[in-house]
Amino acid sequence: MTTRDLLLKAKAAKTAVAIASTEQKNSALLAMADALLAESDAILSANAADMQAAKGRISDSMLDRLLLTPARLQGMADGIRDVVALPDPVGRVLQERCREDGLLIRRVAVPMGVMAIIYESRPNVTADAAALSIKSGNACVLRSGKDAWNSAAAIVAALRRGLAAVGLPQDAIVLVEDTSRESARELMTANGLVDLLIPRGGAGLIRSCVENATVPCIQTGTGICHVYVDKAADLQMALSIVENAKTSRPAVCNAEEVLLVHADVAAEFLPMLKDKLTDGREKHPVELRLCPRAAAIIDGVPAGENDFDTEFLDYILAVRVVDSEAEAIAHIAAHSTGHSEAIVSKDAEALSAFAAGVDAAAVYLNASTRFTDGGEFGLGCEMGISTQRLHARGPMGLEELCTYKYVITGNGHIR
Amino acid sequence: MTTRDLLLKAKAAKTAVAIASTEQKNSALLAMADALLAESDAILSANAADMQAAKGRISDSMLDRLLLTPARLQGMADGIRDVVALPDPVGRVLQERCREDGLLIRRVAVPMGVMAIIYESRPNVTADAAALSIKSGNACVLRSGKDAWNSAAAIVAALRRGLAAVGLPQDAIVLVEDTSRESARELMTANGLVDLLIPRGGAGLIRSCVENATVPCIQTGTGICHVYVDKAADLQMALSIVENAKTSRPAVCNAEEVLLVHADVAAEFLPMLKDKLTDGREKHPVELRLCPRAAAIIDGVPAGENDFDTEFLDYILAVRVVDSEAEAIAHIAAHSTGHSEAIVSKDAEALSAFAAGVDAAAVYLNASTRFTDGGEFGLGCEMGISTQRLHARGPMGLEELCTYKYVITGNGHIR
Repeated sequence: MTTRDLLLKAKAAKTAVAIASTEQKNSALLAMADALLAESDAILSANAADMQAAKGRISDSMLDRLLLTPARLQGMADGIRDVVALPDPVGRVLQERCREDGLLIRRVAVPMGVMAIIYESRPNVTADAAALSIKSGNACVLRSGKDAWNSAAAIVAALRRGLAAVGLPQDAIVLVEDTSRESARELMTANGLVDLLIPRGGAGLIRSCVENATVPCIQTGTGICHVYVDKAADLQMALSIVENAKTSRPAVCNAEEVLLVHADVAAEFLPMLKDKLTDGREKHPVELRLCPRAAAIIDGVPAGENDFDTEFLDYILAVRVVDSEAEAIAHIAAHSTGHSEAIVSKDAEALSAFAAGVDAAAVYLNASTRFTDGGEFGLGCEMGISTQRLHARGPMGLEELCTYKYVITGNGHIR
Repeated sequence: MTTRDLLLKAKAAKTAVAIASTEQKNSALLAMADALLAESDAILSANAADMQAAKGRISDSMLDRLLLTPARLQGMADGIRDVVALPDPVGRVLQERCREDGLLIRRVAVPMGVMAIIYESRPNVTADAAALSIKSGNACVLRSGKDAWNSAAAIVAALRRGLAAVGLPQDAIVLVEDTSRESARELMTANGLVDLLIPRGGAGLIRSCVENATVPCIQTGTGICHVYVDKAADLQMALSIVENAKTSRPAVCNAEEVLLVHADVAAEFLPMLKDKLTDGREKHPVELRLCPRAAAIIDGVPAGENDFDTEFLDYILAVRVVDSEAEAIAHIAAHSTGHSEAIVSKDAEALSAFAAGVDAAAVYLNASTRFTDGGEFGLGCEMGISTQRLHARGPMGLEELCTYKYVITGNGHIR
C-alpha cells in the first residue's frame, strides 16, 4: 500500500482512538501484549529473516539491537502492559475559568491526532511507540528502519489484532511499507495527514526533518552534554559525577561529551580525573582530548577542531579549562545541543547563575546529566527527548503527546 | 543593517532580557510607554509620510489601519502600560517532584529567546508585539509591512530608548530594515538565531511560513468558523448566536463563515435567519450562499464550489443543511481551519459529542465563536491565535510565549 493510502487510513481511524475511554484503551493495550506473545513464532521467524539479511551488512552492536528472542518479546509485552498503569493524559482539565457572565472556559488535554514516528532498525521501538500512541489517544504511522522491517511488520500485525479484539480500528497502528528515503520525505510533508512527526534517530535524520518537514515536528535526541566543574566545586563530587556522566553508558544521548574546568581548580582536578577515567580504569579507559591549557597539566590527546562539537557516544571526553563561570556558560551556549548540562559547585550564586544562564532542556546542579530520561523523571515512559523549545522539552511522556483545546460552555452567550 | 546582523544583535541581547527581573521589565515597559508619547511628534510625522506614500495604493480600510493620531498613540502607550499589570510568566515552577533519593526535579517556565514577528502594515502591532515580548523575557525581531515601515521605525526608536533608560539592551527590540519578501524568507530559515517565528497576517503569509519555515513557527489566525444548529437547538438562542458570530465584526478571524443546520429544524430556522440577517437588517444585510436543500427553503445565492472553504471576512454566510450531528462534525473536519467551532443544542449528549468530536482550538457549546480572544479568555493580552496543535492552541498570551526547562538539583547524585 502506498504511504499516502496508509496515512489516509490512519487519519480515518484517529477520531475513534481519540475519543476512546481509558478502559477501552487499556483493554487494547492488554490485548496488544497478548497478541504479541500469541504471535511470537511468526515474529521470531520474521526477525530471523531480518537477521539473516542484515548479517555482514551492519555492525555487531546494530545486529544485537535488531535481534529478538523469546525473552525480549516478553520484555516488549511487559512494556506494553506497564503503559496500562500510567494515567490517561486525555481529557485532563488543564485550566478552568468561569467568567462573571457565566461563560465557562476550560482548557482540556486532547490527543495530537496522527503521529508519525520515524525510527531505526530497532524492533522494540515498534511496540513501544505504538503503545504510547494508543494510550495517549493518537493513531500512529510507524516507519521502521529497513533492516528491521519484517520484524516490525510481524509486530504491527499482532498489535493490530489486539486493537481489533477490543473494537478499536486496526488502522490506528500502521506500518509504512516503503522503507526508502522517499517515504520519510513523504511523512515530513504530509500536511493535513500527519499531526506530529517524531524522528527518533541519528543527527542526520533529525537535521533532515528540521530542514524538510512542513508538518509539526519534534527535534529529539542529539546530546552534546557538558559538565562544568566550578572553582567552588567539591572535587570528589565532581569526579564522581563526571565519571558517571561519561562512563555509565557512553552511547546514550544524556552522556557527557565535554568537561569544562575552572582554571583555579584545574591543576588539582585534572590529575584526579586522569587517574580515575584513564589510568585507573581496568576496562574502557577514557580518551581525554585536551585543550592546550589542560594539556599543560595532564597528558592526553590534543583536542582537534571538532572535538567540542562532537557527540562521541564513546569513551572519549573533550576537556577545556575556562577562566570563569561566564566563560563556561558562553562555551555551552556556543556548543550545546540544548539537551543536558551540569554544574558542580558549592557556591549558591554560581549554581543559580548557571541555572538561569544555561539554555537547555535539563540543567543539573550537582547531579549527573544521565538522569534526563522519562523513567528517571517519573513520567513512566518516554517517546523521546525533545531538544527544541516548542511544545515539549526534555523527556516526552504521555502528556507531551497531547495538545489541548478550549471547550467553552455558555447559555446563549454572545459578545 | 542586514537582517542577519539584526538577528545577531537580538541574539546577543536575549539573555539579558531573559534573566531580567519582573521589576526591571515593568520599568522598561513604563519607560517604553513614556518614550512613545515623548516622541509622538517624530512618530506622527513618520506616519504622515507613510500615509502620503500609501494613498491611492491601498484601500481605505487599510489606510485607516495605517493611520496614527495622538489619540491612537495614547492608546498604544496605555496598551503597553496594561502589560505591566499582567503576571510575569517567567520563572513559574510548572511542576516539582522530589524523588526518594532527594533529587529535586523542577519544570520552570523560561522565555523562548528571540521571537521574530512578521506582520502587516499596522503600527499598533509594533508596540503591542514588543511589549508582550519584553514582558515574557524575549528579545524580538519585528518585520512590519512596508507601508508602515517609517511609522514602525519611529516607534521602535522610541521603544529602544525606553529599554536603554532602564539598562536593558536596546537590541532586545529590533526592526528589520529590508521589507522585501527576501527578509521574510530569511527569518523563516534563520535556524539558531530565531527561536520562535510568529506570522501575523493573511493566509498567504501563513502558508508561506508553513511551507518554508525551518525555524519553530506558530500558525496563527485563519478562521473558517462554523456554527451548527442542532435539531435540539433553542432556535431563538441559535439565531442570536449566529447573528453575533456573523455580524458583530465580520472581518476578524473568529467570525462565523459557515452555518450548518439540522434538516429537522431547517424549515423553521432558515426563514428566521433570512429575516434577521438579510431582510430585517437596515445596514449590511448578510448575503446567504445556500446549499441546494437550504435554497429549497429560502431565497439566496446558490453556494459555489469554494464557498464552504472561504474565509469571507465579510457580510457573507455559507449555509448548508445536514441530516445529523455526525454529518456536521464530518463537514467541520473536512473544511475547518481548526480555529473556533460552535454548536447550539439543548441535548447534553449532542453537546458532549460535539465537544469530543470537533478538532479545533476552541469548541463552543451554546455560545458565539466571537469569544476566541486573549482578552475574553482572561489572558489580558494576545500575540495571536494559534490554529496549530503544537505548543499552543487558541489565543497566545504571555505564558504561551514561554517554553520551559528542567532544573534538577542534587547533592552529588549519580545514576
